[in-house]
Amino acid sequence: MKNDSDLLNELINALTILPGVGIKSAQRMAFNILEKNRDKAKNLSDLLRLATEQIRNCNQCRNLTEQSICNICSDEKRDSNMLCIVENPSDVLAIENSGTFKGKYFVLMGRLSPIDGLGPDELGIPKLIEQITNSNIKEIIVATSPTVEGDATSFYIRDQIKREVKVTRIAYGVPMGGELEYVDNTTLGRAIQGRREIKE
Amino acid sequence: MKNDSDLLNELINALTILPGVGIKSAQRMAFNILEKNRDKAKNLSDLLRLATEQIRNCNQCRNLTEQSICNICSDEKRDSNMLCIVENPSDVLAIENSGTFKGKYFVLMGRLSPIDGLGPDELGIPKLIEQITNSNIKEIIVATSPTVEGDATSFYIRDQIKREVKVTRIAYGVPMGGELEYVDNTTLGRAIQGRREIKE
Ligand SMILES: [Zn+2]
Ligand SMILES: [Zn+2]
Repeated sequence: MKNDSDLLNELINALTILPGVGIKSAQRMAFNILEKNRDKAKNLSDLLRLATEQIRNCNQCRNLTEQSICNICSDEKRDSNMLCIVENPSDVLAIENSGTFKGKYFVLMGRLSPIDGLGPDELGIPKLIEQITNSNIKEIIVATSPTVEGDATSFYIRDQIKREVKVTRIAYGVPMGGELEYVDNTTLGRAIQGRREIKE
Repeated sequence: MKNDSDLLNELINALTILPGVGIKSAQRMAFNILEKNRDKAKNLSDLLRLATEQIRNCNQCRNLTEQSICNICSDEKRDSNMLCIVENPSDVLAIENSGTFKGKYFVLMGRLSPIDGLGPDELGIPKLIEQITNSNIKEIIVATSPTVEGDATSFYIRDQIKREVKVTRIAYGVPMGGELEYVDNTTLGRAIQGRREIKE
């Protein structure tokens, strides 16, 4: 059974494109907008249009930006000796939030996944390798996800880099404050493989 | 710490107007839209604009519609002897989904709540009473919520109806299949108050 208003039903369906939004949440959102939030919904409509039209990938690092070169790439205060390779824009945000990295980024916009048609070209890897070759980058941190595909991506990139440069992978293991019994097996396996000597 | 793109940050903020969407979900939504769903997001933008501009309240029942009189009000097959009074459009949808009512509706768009500035006028109660007075409605089902305010609204409406007509309130109690130990006290209280004799 649907609402009496076709436009309302269309709006509800359209809201389900948002991740984590099923038909019930979409209904609640649509009613809420129409009963209380029309002005803000108009603003959201405008921003959705603007964002889909204007936000593109940075010509240098592929991160999301409305400029041709993003602010991080064009920021001369950032350390261009360090490059961190991540899968997604949300990873850049997470690393920036951690406050532990002041170099530049390269955003693959995915990870190698032949089954999804994601090969080196789709991830911009030739461009990345070219950038590395023509730069004075001293350390490359590969921060792809701790998954089979993320690992494969990291090995592939390592293999393509032909010049002398330090390539590291971020550490994966038990999260800080995590109790071992609640950590999944794969993470625990990673933590054990990645063990480090306790220095005196 | 924010994203590098101002437009992206504005979009994320705008998404938090949706009920149940915090900043983290909004980020996930924005990234998902921009990485995978631009066409659908454009469509959502269009529908948000159209819906906020065109969906209004039905002149007769106040339910959401893009017409002056909604389809339920203008449907001659529906029983105009029965009127069901609800708080919100979502209640109409829920009752329609139950398939148990074939009459007409009146949607208050809220319930009496002086503290929120919601009095009889804001809920269209004078208009509702006029409709009842000038109609041949035989039964009025008051389906306002089982809350203090929903009860007050139902008593107020009952009190305003000056002509002879059967006025009922839907039953509130333990949901079907619900185990008593998981039912909250208020609901259980309602269920006991609303007990019915078991006929032989
Ligand atoms: Zn960039
Ligand atoms: Zn109507």
